[in-house]
This record gives sequence, structure tokens and C-alpha cells, in this order.
Amino acid sequence: MLIATPQSMHFPAALALQSGASIRGYDLSFETYGQLNADHSNAVLVCHALNASHHVAGVYAGQEKSEGWWDNMIGPGKPVDTDKFFVIGVNNLGSCFGSTGPMHINPDSGRIYGADFPVVTVEDWVDAQARLLDALGIETLAAVLGGSLGGMQALGWTLQYPQRVRHAVVVASAPNLTAENIAFNEVARRAIVTDPDFHGGHFYQHGVTPKRGLRIARMIGHITYLSDDVMNEKFGRQLRDTLIGEEGAGAYKYSTQEVEFQIESYLRYQGDKFAEYFDANTYLLITRALDYFDPAQAFEGHLSLALARATAKFLLVSFTTDWRFSPQRSREIVKALLDNRRHLSYAEIDAPHGHDAFLLDDARYLGVMRCYFDGIAKETA
Amino acid sequence: MLIATPQSMHFPAALALQSGASIRGYDLSFETYGQLNADHSNAVLVCHALNASHHVAGVYAGQEKSEGWWDNMIGPGKPVDTDKFFVIGVNNLGSCFGSTGPMHINPDSGRIYGADFPVVTVEDWVDAQARLLDALGIETLAAVLGGSLGGMQALGWTLQYPQRVRHAVVVASAPNLTAENIAFNEVARRAIVTDPDFHGGHFYQHGVTPKRGLRIARMIGHITYLSDDVMNEKFGRQLRDTLIGEEGAGAYKYSTQEVEFQIESYLRYQGDKFAEYFDANTYLLITRALDYFDPAQAFEGHLSLALARATAKFLLVSFTTDWRFSPQRSREIVKALLDNRRHLSYAEIDAPHGHDAFLLDDARYLGVMRCYFDGIAKETA
Repeated sequence: MLIATPQSMHFPAALALQSGASIRGYDLSFETYGQLNADHSNAVLVCHALNASHHVAGVYAGQEKSEGWWDNMIGPGKPVDTDKFFVIGVNNLGSCFGSTGPMHINPDSGRIYGADFPVVTVEDWVDAQARLLDALGIETLAAVLGGSLGGMQALGWTLQYPQRVRHAVVVASAPNLTAENIAFNEVARRAIVTDPDFHGGHFYQHGVTPKRGLRIARMIGHITYLSDDVMNEKFGRQLRDTLIGEEGAGAYKYSTQEVEFQIESYLRYQGDKFAEYFDANTYLLITRALDYFDPAQAFEGHLSLALARATAKFLLVSFTTDWRFSPQRSREIVKALLDNRRHLSYAEIDAPHGHDAFLLDDARYLGVMRCYFDGIAKETA
Repeated sequence: MLIATPQSMHFPAALALQSGASIRGYDLSFETYGQLNADHSNAVLVCHALNASHHVAGVYAGQEKSEGWWDNMIGPGKPVDTDKFFVIGVNNLGSCFGSTGPMHINPDSGRIYGADFPVVTVEDWVDAQARLLDALGIETLAAVLGGSLGGMQALGWTLQYPQRVRHAVVVASAPNLTAENIAFNEVARRAIVTDPDFHGGHFYQHGVTPKRGLRIARMIGHITYLSDDVMNEKFGRQLRDTLIGEEGAGAYKYSTQEVEFQIESYLRYQGDKFAEYFDANTYLLITRALDYFDPAQAFEGHLSLALARATAKFLLVSFTTDWRFSPQRSREIVKALLDNRRHLSYAEIDAPHGHDAFLLDDARYLGVMRCYFDGIAKETA
């Protein structure tokens, strides 16, 4: 069993942000797995999505159930094999899992940042990650890897630091959000911001957290992570308190507020759990980073022009039932890379699980990833 | 211009509800358009969906902009031609547009019902509508017509009163909700119920309404009414404060709480408007009626068995981009009716507008409706 050890690094120099603001000295939490080889050519950076952290793989000593969020993908003998690669997981600025974020002290005011934490973008995260790599002595990544919002960071790396990335692996991602994607983010944000316990984002000093809003945000999120099909298969119209075949099965309680269907119970549980640990300001920041990402914007929407800078080799993966970041969105990236005659592989996996599929065990998906990373390892060796 | 006149009728006898509860004397608001013919054979009942009322067609005298919600479909010379048909719009029990609902006095307690208003189902609405027809002297409907939740009522009519319906027109509807449909309803309900201004459903006496929750509910609703395509076409990633081509176009404000994109502005506006007039308890009741509707439930899920009772002729219509009630759901009804060798027509309209399409002007859709109702008129004449 891979034992993970969280680390933290302080960066005393200010980081200029895309917004024009800057962030004074900050900390990044990270973990590494495997050994950096002699010429520092086997490093793989893993970028996380909304609700994840630097704890990508392995478990913490003495905590059996503390698997990293991509533990099925990364570890000894796994598709991204830590016997071959030096893998780095890093928590992004503004997150709530250790790196400097809204619940930390603003050195300018001496008070908790809260809503005053500056808006951070995918590009800002990439810049901060690059400084971490500098500190670790890594000039060039064998690969940068991410799913969903993590895939946007991987794509961002190929544009901001094209010479520092040999391979970019972009899973279940998109070149920007659609109006519908932004709409879901906005509803979630409104639920948080209009919760009376939000206190304009300065709830910390009131001793409360906007849990009502966070619950709603998470419930909306979960609906968009799953496919309609898998929801029907897992929950369908099953009632919570009666099992099919039991006496009284199918008897409604006729209540508007009590849980009646299994799907309601599932969503409430997910919402409750999330609201206990996730920071509301982080939710706002991360969904905004998603909204803002749009490398084609500076090229009047022409993604092919935007990706001309990218020189990395690419693996793109999408999942047929992912309606949040549909295969069509990955194909847009594929098309833009082909327009630039770049080296790429693309796998469209016929998986039933919707957007969540990128975190799940699907033999074909894991097989594609293993095959691609084996190829990178051979180049590196 | 068709001038509409709202009417109200009191029903002194208690109505037994599906839940086992009953509702004492109640009022139904309704409107009629056109003339009932001598043998009372030209009546068309229009059933409404979540956010609509008995005001289906025409305008109120002196109020030019007060068109009924289906005014493009129903009126003199329109697809459902009120020169030929006697059309009835009725507001359902539990709604907030005139018929007895949660904001009225509970005769048992002398206080406003609020959350004590009994849970009503599609079947209960159909029963109440049947009593209205009795009072109007209408034994048999030329047609019952509805879209979305209104389509469920039309289907319900063919099962509860098969001998009283010659034609059922079921538009953009479904034989029951999927887990995903229920999930969206549940998130909306949780947003309302957890709003501190909800006060357990008895907010009326507190002089407040749970507007925060209603806004969120409506925003979620709007996302599911539109197709991804039409959202991209109407809003895309356009920013609110800059027009494409203008100087400074595409400049972000870098804010998590301010409106940045047009889609956000649209959703907030829709949410604000809705929260001003819609009743929170009605929202809970109507979404629950949607959740509960499932004629196949008593037949272990076999819709064909459930629909064996239906003897009406059917027109079913669905829209290709409707992901709330997809064509697949209409096809399930078609299949079940074909299994019973029933007379039916089915039109799948290639419209871009998502679920909303059933309320919009689409020449093919309106043409299909006109053609079908012309046929009914010929039978009736």
C-alpha cells in the first residue's frame, strides 16, 4: 500500500494574477509519489477538479480508508505507475484543503480573507504550479494530467509553458464552458451567496457556514456528474422506505417535505456530507475559474489559433454519457490540435456513468491510460 | 381579439384525494372560449403545467399584454379553433392563481393552509376537473389537451374517465418522471424548504415569502426547459456588459458574485420575477404531483397493461431537443398504446428549443396540431 505524506511549501514572492490583482506570499500543499529520476525527466503533474486536493493517491499512515481521489489510476503498478514516474499532486490556490485560500489570514488586513480572496483562474493555478516545479527542480514534465477542470489546467500548461510539457492528458474536459455549464454554476453560487449564513462571504467571524447553500450547490453538482441512464439504473423511481416485492411496496407517503424516493435520499446525503467540510468561498472561486477558462477568447473564438502555441503530445479521453463535458467538447480540442498538425491520441469511451466516469474503474479507460503512460515511460527510460 | 373572462365555481361536496385525505368545499377558477354546441360534443379541456393557470387564451378586457399562456395555440382561427370548439381552461387545486390552494383558509382550522394543504395528485386534479365538466353539462370531451404536466393530466383522463374522452392530445410529456427529473424537483424543493423565510410552510403569518428558495427553484427549472443548443445560441459565453466587437469586449470583471455572463443575468431575472408572484407551497405541491404520477406503478411497471383502459384516440407530440421529457418518453406511451392496438398519431418535431418548444411558435408543430383538431372538428360537426 502506497503511503502518502502531505507536504507544504511557502512561496514568499507575490504571484501576479490574471485579474490584475496579486497574492502575497502563499503556501501550496502537495504530495509526491515515486522517485524523481537522475535527469528529472519522469515527473507527472496531476491537476485536480472542483472537489479534490493534492491527495491524489495512496493512503495516510494508519488511515486505511484515506485513499487519494485518483488512487485507482495512480500508484505502484497502476496505469500511471509510480514505480516509473515521479507523480506530484498539488492543491490549488483558493482551495480549502491546505493551500492558501479564503479561510486563511489576509496579510494585508490581518483578517481572514473570506470573500476578499482574489479571483483565481486556471492560468493562475498553472503559474503557481510552475513555481512549485521550479522549487522541486523539475524543468520539464513528462506529462501533465487532469480530468474535468483538471484537464483545463493540463491544456493551460501546454499554452503557458509549452516547452515544459512533453505530454498533456486531458480527460472529460472542454475548451471552455457552455452557457448551460455556466448556468448550473451560477445557480449553485446564488444558493450559497443568498444563504443568510453567508454574510457576504465573511461568515467565519460569525461562527457559521452557509450550509444550506452548499447543500443545494452539491445536489445540483451531483445531478450533472451522473448520466440519466445511470441514475435510472441506480435509483429509478424506487422509494426509500419500501423495497420492491415487499408488502406495501410502492405506497407513497404523500408528503412534499419528507424523503419519498431513493434519489432524494442520495442527494440529501451527498449535500449534507459536502456542506460539513467544503468552504463556500472556495466553491465560488473554483466555479468561477471554470467559467472564465476560455483560451480561444483572445483569438475571437478560434480554438485552432489558440492552440497553435501548444507543442506537447496529447491524449484526450471523453465518455459517451458525459453530458456535462460531452465528447463533442473533447472533439473540439482534437479538431483544433489536428488543424495544427499536432501529435494526438483520442479515446471516446462508451461508459454509462456520465462525467463521474473519469474517476471510476472502467477497464477500457484504465487500459487506454496505462498504454499511453507506458509509452511515455519508454521515452523517458 | 379574444376577450377572456375568468370565472369561479364553488364545489361544496368534499373531494376524496388519492392520499386518503379529503378536501372540503373548494373553488375552481376557469375560463371558457367559444360556444358549447347543442349536443355538447365540442368541448376541449386544456390542462396546465407547473407555472400556468386557467388563463389559456385571449386577453383580459383593457389589458393588452395579458395573453393567455397558450394563446398562440388556442383562439379564433388558431390550431385549436374556438370558432369550432368550446375550450375550457381550469386552474388546478393547490395552485396559486385562483383555485383553492395553500394561501387560502383551511375550513378545519380557520387558518391559512400553508404547508397543511393536502398533497394533490394528477389523478385528484382530473377528478376535480370532471366535477367541473359535470357542472358545465359536459358528459364527453371532444378532446383533452395538455403539455408537460398538462399532458400527464390528459393521459390521466383517458385512464380515469375513458368513456368521457374521445381524443387525448399529450404534448412534451412522459408516463412518469425519471430519477433525474425527480432529482431536479427535489433540489428545487430543498432550496425552498431550507430558506429561513419558509417557516415550515407557514410563512404567510410571518409576512414574508421564501424568495431566495423560489429564485433558485426557478433558475433550475429554466435550465431544464431550454436545450443546451438554444442556450448557446441565445447566450453562449457572451458577457453582460460588453458587446462583441466593442472596445473592451471580452474583458472579465473577475468577480464571483457580480453578473458576468448574459446567461447569469437571464437566470437571475427569471428567478426574481417568479419569486414575486409564485407561491412556495404551490411549488412543492405541483412538483410532487409530477413526481408521483406513474400509471404503470400499479401494474409492476408495465405501461402497456396500465394503458389497456384507455380507449381514446391519441395525438402525441415530442420535441427532439427536449431533454426534460425526451422523445423517448413519448415513444414509451406510443409503444404501450400500440400494444393495445389503439388509434394514435405521433409527431416528433425537430425543434431547437428544448422542453419550452411546446409553448412556442413552430410551424410544423402548430401545423400538426391544427390538422389534428380539424379532424376532430369534422367528427364533431
